[in-house]
Amino acid sequence: MCESCGCGEKTLRVEIAEGLLSANERLAQRNRAWFERLGVKAINLVGSPGAGKTSLIEATVKDLRGKRVAVIEGDPETRRDAERLAALGIPVAAVTTGGVCHLDARMVHQAFHDLEAHRPDLLFIENVGNLLCPADFNLGEDLTVVVLSVTEGEDKPEKYPQAFRRAQALVITKIDLLPYVDFNLERLIGLAHRINPTLRVFPLSVKTGEGLPAWLDFLHSLP
Amino acid sequence: MCESCGCGEKTLRVEIAEGLLSANERLAQRNRAWFERLGVKAINLVGSPGAGKTSLIEATVKDLRGKRVAVIEGDPETRRDAERLAALGIPVAAVTTGGVCHLDARMVHQAFHDLEAHRPDLLFIENVGNLLCPADFNLGEDLTVVVLSVTEGEDKPEKYPQAFRRAQALVITKIDLLPYVDFNLERLIGLAHRINPTLRVFPLSVKTGEGLPAWLDFLHSLP
Repeated sequence: MCESCGCGEKTLRVEIAEGLLSANERLAQRNRAWFERLGVKAINLVGSPGAGKTSLIEATVKDLRGKRVAVIEGDPETRRDAERLAALGIPVAAVTTGGVCHLDARMVHQAFHDLEAHRPDLLFIENVGNLLCPADFNLGEDLTVVVLSVTEGEDKPEKYPQAFRRAQALVITKIDLLPYVDFNLERLIGLAHRINPTLRVFPLSVKTGEGLPAWLDFLHSLP
Repeated sequence: MCESCGCGEKTLRVEIAEGLLSANERLAQRNRAWFERLGVKAINLVGSPGAGKTSLIEATVKDLRGKRVAVIEGDPETRRDAERLAALGIPVAAVTTGGVCHLDARMVHQAFHDLEAHRPDLLFIENVGNLLCPADFNLGEDLTVVVLSVTEGEDKPEKYPQAFRRAQALVITKIDLLPYVDFNLERLIGLAHRINPTLRVFPLSVKTGEGLPAWLDFLHSLP
């Protein structure tokens, strides 16, 4: 350890983080109770920028019959994805975090005030594009879904285990690109299951439609 | 605003964040002075998981003649990328952040203790895969480079402006996949330049080698 530079300096970072997380946890429990009371299934979609979260919601909304869907759309800046989804005629509440790297329970709570009256059956919460921070923040959701594209590399479960551990399902997007990238689907699924053996896995392409029916069946089968 | 739920609760988040950032800034200035004294050019590579940061360093190291290169390799978990690079025979210091979403000046300082003796000309600092948090943390680098793959979508500069604003160069990776994705290279470059008009842009593919020479010339031309 170098003495002159103070590089061993302690910060309060850990304690502060724990304080924020426990405040968030209380609000998340309140969200959960609210969703339950209204019979809303809330699905927290977590993944890197460009993993295809918005496209997945678009494709899902177009094909999902008999369910009322609403969306909370988180982005660090711009309301573009929210507008893209609102164009489908579904209720969307945009949350622009101003650079904050994840949604928290408070943001979701405030946004859901605008959606409650629509009485959705399913609420998709598209988290900020980020494979790390969202994994630490409970939003009161019923289900966390990791969205990972085949262009991101199959080592991601080991490098970003938190998100995979927290999730109940993994959607592997852009499988139409498999012939053009070095990506071993079986290996990825193996690594993901090593971290979370009960993870349901849905490889799909919203471009070709391949794999979408299994994902839609899964959503329909939610209790 | 709903009164019963406490959703308007103030947190100390902003003040805390400012305190951490100013402590980081002091250490970053110390790093900068250290690098300058030794004649090291430090390059902070920032991008999403799977954008191709490690592959870019690999390709760069293999083709860059006449420069001594060292790498600080940041990952939330695993030392896999560090091992991949060490296999090329270059000095690598691994920083495993344990889930923290960015490198900070202190981590870089500690890691550089292990590299100083190698007297590198160029120091690549591969930040944690994340397009948001690393943009807030000065590491004392000379240059920030955003790495974005063509599979991530051309809207990223508008949604994640902070990183593009902070950077001096943008490397657009995986251009070999352009025929298979909906991605307008010109539009992306236009959006990036609207946020940062002086950004140098290098579209390239480490798979085919296309575009690599311009990037290598750029590195050689650094003062």
